Amino acid sequence: MAPTRNSAIIFNEVPTGYPEPGKTTIFDENRTIDLENVPLNGGVLLKVLVVSNDPYLRGKMRDASIASYSDAFKIGAPLSNFAVGRVVRSEAEAFKVGDHVASFLNFEEYTVMPGAALSWVTKLDNKVNLPWSVYVGAAGMPGRTAYSAYHEFSKAKKGETIFVSTGAGAVGSLVIQIAKRDGLKVIGSAGSDDKVAFMKEIGADVAFNYKTTSTDEILAKEGPIDIYWDNVGGATLDSALGHMNVNGRIINCGMISAYNTKEPYAFKNIMRIVTHSLSLNGFIESRIGPKHSEKFYREFVPLLANGEVKYREEKTPLAEAGEAIRKIQMGENIAKSVIVVAED
Amino acid sequence: MAPTRNSAIIFNEVPTGYPEPGKTTIFDENRTIDLENVPLNGGVLLKVLVVSNDPYLRGKMRDASIASYSDAFKIGAPLSNFAVGRVVRSEAEAFKVGDHVASFLNFEEYTVMPGAALSWVTKLDNKVNLPWSVYVGAAGMPGRTAYSAYHEFSKAKKGETIFVSTGAGAVGSLVIQIAKRDGLKVIGSAGSDDKVAFMKEIGADVAFNYKTTSTDEILAKEGPIDIYWDNVGGATLDSALGHMNVNGRIINCGMISAYNTKEPYAFKNIMRIVTHSLSLNGFIESRIGPKHSEKFYREFVPLLANGEVKYREEKTPLAEAGEAIRKIQMGENIAKSVIVVAED
Repeated sequence: MAPTRNSAIIFNEVPTGYPEPGKTTIFDENRTIDLENVPLNGGVLLKVLVVSNDPYLRGKMRDASIASYSDAFKIGAPLSNFAVGRVVRSEAEAFKVGDHVASFLNFEEYTVMPGAALSWVTKLDNKVNLPWSVYVGAAGMPGRTAYSAYHEFSKAKKGETIFVSTGAGAVGSLVIQIAKRDGLKVIGSAGSDDKVAFMKEIGADVAFNYKTTSTDEILAKEGPIDIYWDNVGGATLDSALGHMNVNGRIINCGMISAYNTKEPYAFKNIMRIVTHSLSLNGFIESRIGPKHSEKFYREFVPLLANGEVKYREEKTPLAEAGEAIRKIQMGENIAKSVIVVAED
Repeated sequence: MAPTRNSAIIFNEVPTGYPEPGKTTIFDENRTIDLENVPLNGGVLLKVLVVSNDPYLRGKMRDASIASYSDAFKIGAPLSNFAVGRVVRSEAEAFKVGDHVASFLNFEEYTVMPGAALSWVTKLDNKVNLPWSVYVGAAGMPGRTAYSAYHEFSKAKKGETIFVSTGAGAVGSLVIQIAKRDGLKVIGSAGSDDKVAFMKEIGADVAFNYKTTSTDEILAKEGPIDIYWDNVGGATLDSALGHMNVNGRIINCGMISAYNTKEPYAFKNIMRIVTHSLSLNGFIESRIGPKHSEKFYREFVPLLANGEVKYREEKTPLAEAGEAIRKIQMGENIAKSVIVVAED
């Protein structure tokens, strides 16, 4: 059989600021794969269907000599991230041709997961019949992030107030809905009027565009806040610190304001950690997710399928993944960004 | 009976930077009190013996219109803080002449605690026969601060590493000794060679002068650290963030570097809260102390009396309290600072 095209998004150069498609990453259409003969070493050959595009990928676009919680991408090799694929060949008993699986996969059309890597591959049963793309979003890593950290750290009590930054995003929009179902007053911020409208649609009591409205003014009027879900860091975290209630909890999910700059932020309100008995809680989903996983699939995922919890997706074909990656770092995406490699 | 002199330290002016004796505070020798006839309203008249001098007092030297966890001092009235006094007259059944009590008292020679304030007055039994001054130090608020927050937040495991800033101070020196007794590797920092020698004497495995040795270099060599006891904030907190282990705990006891400046500090390593799953825990002793109080008096205070846990005091007469207050903000005190008003 003739070799089959195996296009990929290749990591080409470490960005100094925002990632640039065509420079940071390159779409390579000239790669091929021999689907019948490529060695599987006891593993599976997958057709990649959908790959997640997340803010944290910026951290992997670094010099490989800098250690971090997640390995750096390799120059010249494809990017990789949480993804869903369909088995097209298998040497593993646990996986049959046609099975759908979730795993950490390359940004390419076909990929091999050898036997040694199969412990990272999870079969998806999808009894609730969600589109496969949702398994890299609200039913995948961003969903588990929102669900597990909220339950691990918020100590939420009915009637309390939570402020969620990037409240229209893949994680933030789920936090808003989880908090609302818990009886909290929810304040959400995002960077466009469309995102503000979405936050209101999913139940935020107060939703504002931080580019046109002062975060400080909103929090002074609608706060103080008991819980702050931080996806931003920097000035937004500083504002939140300034408006926390005594014994407030901050959940440090991400700090996108710091990903694309080397300029450190000067915090005016950091003393309130002491004066207001605040806790800040950083986490990585993979470290706390397993504890909440069973309940997540049993209680939360069905709410996505029956429409009680809403999600939005923004689909980009593989060829344009570099641009989608840039947009997410700029905050230009309007919903959970997914790279659609193939329909099925 | 003729009026008796009742000297006091009066709050005179809100400082903009460091407090200045004679300007921020004034020693007033012309006040008097009529010991026999001053109305007690069901309370007690106390001879003040010793008053604590703590870093946090700087926060009370503010414009009274700014709310905080602790009331602002009133211009024209005496300063106040944790203190020990002896009852010289009593209208309250629970207190007899000669009893020694701990309470929040004015910086003056004699003070009245009316009946309505008696719930804030605690009788000291002192079975272990410690000098009264220790009840405003290692057996008082600083001691309870070290003991309760360490047990509340450190989650210390034998063999872990703790870094204690201001490790020769009233609180830090106790944290070093508590951690050492718990089987931890202890790194302590302070601002003079004398303080470094004291930290070694009380068991610190590594003790350094942050003015002559780089905190970053020490932590790179002796870390990573699992627990950071922060009394400093700013650059020291930033260094610690840069050298924390995954799942590290920071205990935010104070941020003296921020008390006397309006210049906010730009944190280079704040992203590690997320990437290293760190927790930061601010607290006020009065909010967590009661939970640990019984054990503190039963297990810890006897160790002060039998010499197993060491403490140092620096005694200053009331007339010079303003200078002692300035020194503690400058880090020029060499030990727990106590204002001795009378011997007994």
